[in-house]
Order: sequence, then structure tokens, then C-alpha cells
Amino acid sequence: MTTATKSDKDRVVIFDTTLRDGEQCPGATMTHEEKLEVASLLDEMGVDIIEAGFPIASEGDFAAVHEIAKRSKNAVICGLSRAAPKDIDRCAEAIKPAARRRIHTFLSTSPVHMKYKLQKEPHEVYEMVIAQVTRARNHTDDVEWSSEDGTRTEHDFLCRCVEAAIKAGATTINIPDTVGYTTPEEYAALFRMVRERVPNADKAVFSVHCHDDLGMAVANSLAGVMGGARQIECTINGIGERAGNAALEEVVMAIQTRNDVLPYWTNIDATMLTRASKLVSAATSFPVQYNKAIVGRNAFAHESGIHQDGMLKNTQTYEIMTPESVGVKQTSLVMGKHSGRHAFVHKLEELGYKLGANQLEDAFTRFKALADRKKHIYDEDIEALVDEEIATAQDRIKLVALTVIAGTRGPQSATLELDIDGRHQTIQATGNGPVDATFNAIKAIIPHEATLELYQVHAVTEGTDAQAEVSVRLAQGDYAVTSRGADPDTLVASAKAYLGALNKLTARGARTHAQHSAQ
Amino acid sequence: MTTATKSDKDRVVIFDTTLRDGEQCPGATMTHEEKLEVASLLDEMGVDIIEAGFPIASEGDFAAVHEIAKRSKNAVICGLSRAAPKDIDRCAEAIKPAARRRIHTFLSTSPVHMKYKLQKEPHEVYEMVIAQVTRARNHTDDVEWSSEDGTRTEHDFLCRCVEAAIKAGATTINIPDTVGYTTPEEYAALFRMVRERVPNADKAVFSVHCHDDLGMAVANSLAGVMGGARQIECTINGIGERAGNAALEEVVMAIQTRNDVLPYWTNIDATMLTRASKLVSAATSFPVQYNKAIVGRNAFAHESGIHQDGMLKNTQTYEIMTPESVGVKQTSLVMGKHSGRHAFVHKLEELGYKLGANQLEDAFTRFKALADRKKHIYDEDIEALVDEEIATAQDRIKLVALTVIAGTRGPQSATLELDIDGRHQTIQATGNGPVDATFNAIKAIIPHEATLELYQVHAVTEGTDAQAEVSVRLAQGDYAVTSRGADPDTLVASAKAYLGALNKLTARGARTHAQHSAQ
Repeated sequence: MTTATKSDKDRVVIFDTTLRDGEQCPGATMTHEEKLEVASLLDEMGVDIIEAGFPIASEGDFAAVHEIAKRSKNAVICGLSRAAPKDIDRCAEAIKPAARRRIHTFLSTSPVHMKYKLQKEPHEVYEMVIAQVTRARNHTDDVEWSSEDGTRTEHDFLCRCVEAAIKAGATTINIPDTVGYTTPEEYAALFRMVRERVPNADKAVFSVHCHDDLGMAVANSLAGVMGGARQIECTINGIGERAGNAALEEVVMAIQTRNDVLPYWTNIDATMLTRASKLVSAATSFPVQYNKAIVGRNAFAHESGIHQDGMLKNTQTYEIMTPESVGVKQTSLVMGKHSGRHAFVHKLEELGYKLGANQLEDAFTRFKALADRKKHIYDEDIEALVDEEIATAQDRIKLVALTVIAGTRGPQSATLELDIDGRHQTIQATGNGPVDATFNAIKAIIPHEATLELYQVHAVTEGTDAQAEVSVRLAQGDYAVTSRGADPDTLVASAKAYLGALNKLTARGARTHAQHSAQ
Repeated sequence: MTTATKSDKDRVVIFDTTLRDGEQCPGATMTHEEKLEVASLLDEMGVDIIEAGFPIASEGDFAAVHEIAKRSKNAVICGLSRAAPKDIDRCAEAIKPAARRRIHTFLSTSPVHMKYKLQKEPHEVYEMVIAQVTRARNHTDDVEWSSEDGTRTEHDFLCRCVEAAIKAGATTINIPDTVGYTTPEEYAALFRMVRERVPNADKAVFSVHCHDDLGMAVANSLAGVMGGARQIECTINGIGERAGNAALEEVVMAIQTRNDVLPYWTNIDATMLTRASKLVSAATSFPVQYNKAIVGRNAFAHESGIHQDGMLKNTQTYEIMTPESVGVKQTSLVMGKHSGRHAFVHKLEELGYKLGANQLEDAFTRFKALADRKKHIYDEDIEALVDEEIATAQDRIKLVALTVIAGTRGPQSATLELDIDGRHQTIQATGNGPVDATFNAIKAIIPHEATLELYQVHAVTEGTDAQAEVSVRLAQGDYAVTSRGADPDTLVASAKAYLGALNKLTARGARTHAQHSAQ
């Protein structure tokens, strides 16, 4: 694209809500550290506004928004708040350290939401809109107001609220399709209608926020832009409440690929999309389906003879964008037992990792141990190894040794040795299968109330000698953490993943305590 | 919906291509039996046309189409063919047993496809269109012609080809978005243009076929219908080449939920959508992402306090369709060690299973064994158990006993006893982890060339004593099979899954041999 075409009026601002709407969907809870890592990548890839959380919702949300605000480099850091003054003030406090900060305050405007959820009359809601935006503007000049359930709101009332919000100082007006209900034609017409009828509409940027309940979140988002919106709210991998939000990678690539009919531009570095997808998938343990657009493992794969034949003759026959344009690297056989430290460091840099000296030393030791056991070491093997190294660096509980006896002739048993703050303990336990026996042994050494919500194993690379990567989610009360462990032995990987989750729960207990003391 | 609104002109015909475009995507290969099972469910749920395969592509494809044609009750059975006479004749032969049969013949019409893939001039392509449709019409009155890469085809040439195809006897005209390139506005306009300009357009039904490369397959399909198309080509779970096809469940529910702006109707029984999704996911071992519209596990889940609060007050605040409307059953704690045979049979019926007396006996024995080991037995546990029972009924290789010793102090070892056609063999093997050791033991007893392409484990239900369900995909040459095994012991489940895949490869060898002999 030439600079000449990049006029400001065609710029579409990307508002990422992976850490708010995405993280709020069942099971997608991320730890504090994972949120910081995701935010850092979003900032680096060119996201304009990062909605980092909902500060009033919990101490954890507040702490994450606050820390992300401190660390942000380019992105505007945004927090969500309802209409209550204390919500707005708490949000303002959380985003305070950011160089550029936004308060996103919302209120339901549809008949069904006003009647049942808010239990308020329209005229009361109208006054609340003015009050919430006014209060937010006292904290920052960058205020976004959302008409929750906007696509089911009466047009007259919607226009009145939008006009009042802008008059009170809102600089962005979001009309969300909260229930994933609209169609492209209808949504485009809605923005045209509001922008025509609201007298001060030119004083604000309009925003789309779409859910995928009927499979149309991306098309609806782009239709909204054609109707005059210039901000898209979206998430990596399309995670979010229920069927999720519009996927950031899809809206960005649609604009880039079909710039002839979607003559807009964004600031996103598309070559980082694949990395972002993998990071979010790993942090949430949400698998990306194989045929997911842009970032699914099949998105650029061609199986049928007809397609392969065409691709060999000319890639344009079946490919409208290159895998490289979204950061897909061809899996390459790269390292083995003879690879030295220098090659290992170089490979890590290529994969986007920067480790401290101690972490590097540990990772290299584990790489050599893996190379002794596994013939081919792929990029994914190294990623799994390093991800785990980073995750376990601060752990209080460490696995020392594990022996398991399993099979059809039960009961299965596990003998486990752990290092807890430097003290070693050993125990034997039986269970319903080798994984249950292993987890029972952990529970015998470290009694806890958390319940196992998710257990998944997949092979990191192909072949029977591949490393296994295990994801474990533990829930305690209304809080859940997910952790991963990798090892050629699935049972060792299972133990590591379970201990990682326990470490996260322990760390969280410590942090929450610290926060309460501070206030 | 009242009968009065169901006029023929608003009827949208559902053309399912799960078994053709879906099955042709990398890794989604289904066995003969799995294809029959999927076809039977599609027929039962009201799919109008089942594209059962591409008969010339392989003996397996031919056999599946032929058998599905024999068994079909209501659906039209369709086979795909290129333009070559032998393709068309082979397709006609495959669908012959069906009461209602369609030949779907296609040819590329875009400049890039004609030049590089076909290496033909437009006038040659034009003549081929007439010839292919004419030949197909000699076999059946129901002929569909597709202009491959239709959305990148020059309008004048597209109209000429469509006119010629209809004149030659095509009754359905499909204009596919082969590369997943179009947008809703553009695609609707394309159908309006073709239907306005082609003089005999009213003699054929127009069809959409969309790919999701830019995340717009569903919106594009519905836009095409608004532009005058009355057939939607789609797949269960949206599987298909690259980013997949439009998802059947999404287009159907969009039409049903937004009938005010999409005033059409289909013949699909939506309450079977969840079952169809599970069946296809299991047969292909393609996971459905949690936030997938309609059929993802989060599609009807609400996590955030705000949403939960609203839902408790009135479900309409955040829900535009009920889980029950798409066949979601609430997971219920139903069975335990004291449940008898009668309760078990009743539960099976409720879950949609009809087992023969022997299979039922075996399943009940395994259910009792499971109930002895596992405290809570959920619907999913029973489904896993019965699915495996059905899969293993015909197996030549069976697991007798397995003992594995694993952990941090390698090498890991497995002692395995198998029953092969009634003869027992035992062996011990070591490996890189307990799974590798187990698979090495299998390889030592049954030497084979197949490579492991996929290994996945997930817990069937929550809790540490959950059953593990393992998926294994083995590839031999350009053929791949997937099999599942379930057991509270992950290693036993792994062995069962691997043996299941070997059994499928063996069965396939036998069938292919039989087919060749028959011709």
C-alpha cells in the first residue's frame, strides 16, 4: 500500500479486548504474568487500544490493568467500567500510570435490558449516560461510551443517548452487537442512521463490537466500518463470551486482502498474528480449531489433488494471501544433539525469545537432555521447552522424581518426590489410572481444595517419540488457573502441569494478600 | 413459523458437503463406516442434498458414495466430477442406487485458473461446459454445474457459461467463492447481476458455496441468498479446505433466529445440530473450538458476573436462541454402580444409541467395570464407552493386558499382551516415555510402516478420576485413519486408540483388495 492511500479518514483503529471480553469467557482465565505477556505482544504488534480488564471486577483485574498501564509503550490502555461512580473512579485509578489512557464506560439501552437487567425507565438511563460520561471525562480526555445491547435498542432512544454522551464528552461511541444478533446489512444501516441523525456525530469516532453467535462477527464488523465506524473491537482467536468476538486476525487480513472493496487501513503488523494466536491459545488453553481462518493449522494447507495441482502451477489459484504475510513459519528440522549453545541462542532469537542468563542455562541443559532422548528437535519442541522454563522459574514446588506403574492390571501407583521451598518429600499413592495416581500423590504431599477442570495432552510434534504437552486447569472457588508441562513422558508432563497450576494458585494467594494489605 | 409463511420461493435448499469438501481437508479423512454414519444422520436431520464424495478420486470415495446412495432415505445423493467424460460416467455409476441422484460437475472459469490450472482458452472452456453438462444430463435429470473460482471470474464470461450450462440442462448453478475471497455486498451483487443478465436464469436454482478464509463464509452465504440464490453448500462444524466452508449449523440458525430480516426457511431439524457436530468432530478428530458459534462448548455459557446476573433476571437479555433449540442437553449426573441394565438401556436410548444384543451386553459389562472405578458416571462417559464399543466390535487385533513402568527414572517400559485373530502374543519394549514404550511394544508384535501423525488425550468429564479419551491418527502413504480409545488409564486408552487405527488400516487393505477384485 502506498502512503498516498493512507489518509486519516480511512484509518480503522484496532481496539483489542482479548484481556477483557476474551478473558471473561468460561475457562479462559489468565494469570497476571500471562496477561502482561499478551499485553506486551499486542502493544508491539500495533494494537491501538488495549482493553486490559475490568478493574472493579476483582483485585486481580485491577492489578493487571495497573501493571499493563505502567508497562505500555505505544498503545492506549483502557479499562472497562459500569455507570456507577465507584466503578469509574476505580477504573481511572487502574489506568493512571499509562501515558495514554481511556475509560470505557457502558450502559444498557435496549428495552429488554433496561426493564429486566437495570430495572430502570429510559429517562433514568438517559440521565445516567450523561452522569457516567461526565464523571469519566473528569479523569481523562479519552472516554468511550457503549450502548450495551445497542443492536436491539430503539433507534430514537439510541440517537438521544449517543447525542447526550458526545455532548458530555465521549470521544468514542461504541454500538455493540452484545448478543451476536445483527446482520451486515442491518448493522451498516444502523451506523449510517445514527451518524445521519445525531447532530454532533462528527465529534466522535464510532466503534463496532460484534459477537459471533450466528457466525457473522467479522462480516458485521466490516459492515459497520462501511457504515462509518472507524474502530473495531476484537480479540485474538476470536475468544470472548459465548461464541466469542470478531477475530482480530480476520478483520485485519480481510481489510488487507480486499483493500479494493474495503479501502481502509490499520496499524497492525500482520506478520505477528500467528505468534499472537499461539500465545493466547497457550495462555488460555483454548485450542484453535484446525480450520480457523488465518491462524488454524489448516488455513494454508491444501490436501485435495486438484488443489495441490493448481497450487504447484500457480499459488494464486487457491491462495489469496501468503502464509508468510501472517507470520507462519514452515516447520523446519533445525536442531539435534550436536547443536551447540550458540546455535541454540540463535534459534531462540529467531523464535522471538529473550532469556536471562540463568534461564538460558537451564533451558540449554534441558534442550541437551531432550536431544539425547529425541531424534528430531523441531521449533515447536524448543518453544514448549522454553515456555515451560519461563513458567517454572519462580516456582516454590518442584518435581524431583516420579515413578509410575500402570496398565490393565490395577491399581495404578505413583511414587513421587517433590522439592517444596528446598525441602524434599517422597510419597506413594494409588489411583484410577496413572494420571490419577500421580495427582493423588501430589495431593497427599500438598493437601488442597482445588478441583481439576481440564486435562489435555497433545504431542508437540509428530512421531511416537514426540514430547507431550499437558494442560491442566485447577479451580478454587470462582478462580481458575491453567498450566502446561512438557516432557517426552506424558506422566512427568502431567505432574509438571499440575504442580505449575498449584504454584500459580499459591502465587495468587500471596499476591491477593499483598494487595489487601496495601489498601 | 406458520405454514402460511413457508412459500416455495423462500425455501433454501441445504446441500451438505461434509463428506466431500469437508473430508478432503488435511487430516479429516473418515473411514467407510464413519462416512455411512455421518450420511445417515444428515439424511435424518433433513439435509436436502448430500454430496457424498468425489467418485473418481479413489476406490474408497466411489465405494462410500455407492453405499450411501443405496442407503439414503430422503436426501438427494450427489457425487462430484470434473469435466472429463470418464469422471462424469464414474460419478453416475456411484450414485446409481439412489432414489434421487445428482451429478455435480465443475469447471474453472476465472482467468488465473483457466490460464495456469486448465491451460485452456476461454472459448475451449465454454465448449467444455456444454459438453460436461450434456453428458451429465444423459445420466440424470438433476445436474448441478459449478463455475470454480466463480467470484474471480469475469462477469461477461461467467454469464455466458451460466447461460450455456442451463441451456445444456443444468438445473442448479453454483457460483462458488472457491478461495474465500468475497464480501457479503459483493457476493449478493454477483447473484443479482447474473440472474438479471442471463436470459434463462429462471430455469435453474442458484447456489452459494463459500470458504471462510477471511471469516465471512456464513455472511457471504446468506448475502448470496438475499441476492437470489436458493441453495447453500455447507458442512457440519464448517470443516473443509483451508479455513473451511460455511458451517451448516450457523447458516441454519441465522435463518431461524433472524427470520425477520432473512425471511427464508430450511428443512433442517435444528435440534439435531449438536449431535451432528459431535459425530463429525469425533469421526475426523477435529476439535471444535470452545467459542465456535452454535456448537462450541461455550456457545451457551455465561461467565461474567454481569451476564450471569442478566441471565438470571431474564434469559433474553443475553440469549437469542435456547440451547435446547439446537439439541444441547444439560450434563446430568445419571448413573452409578447401582444402576441396572434397564436404566442403562433407557439412558442409551436417550443418548440416541441403538445397540444389538451382543454389543449391549459388552457395553453393560464395561459400564459396570467403569462404575466400580469411577464415582460419577456422566452422559459423556457413557457416550465414550459406547462409541468405543461400536468401533471395536469388528476388530481383529484386541488388547488383552498392558503393564507400564514410567517416570523420571527412564527408560520407560511396557509389557503388552495382544489377541490377534484369537492368538495371544506378549512382548516387552522400552521407549521415550510410557506412550512411546507402549506403541513400541505394539510395533514389535505387529510390524508396520504407518507413522503417527496425531496424538491427543482429553478427559471425558471433570475430576482426576475421569476417563481419558485418546485420539490417534496413523498415516500410511497418502491415506490416514483416526481412532479413539477410552479408559480411566490413559496408557490403556492410548493402546486401544493405536490398535483401533491399526485395525482400520487392516480393514481398509481388505476392502480395497475386494474392490479391485470385483472389477
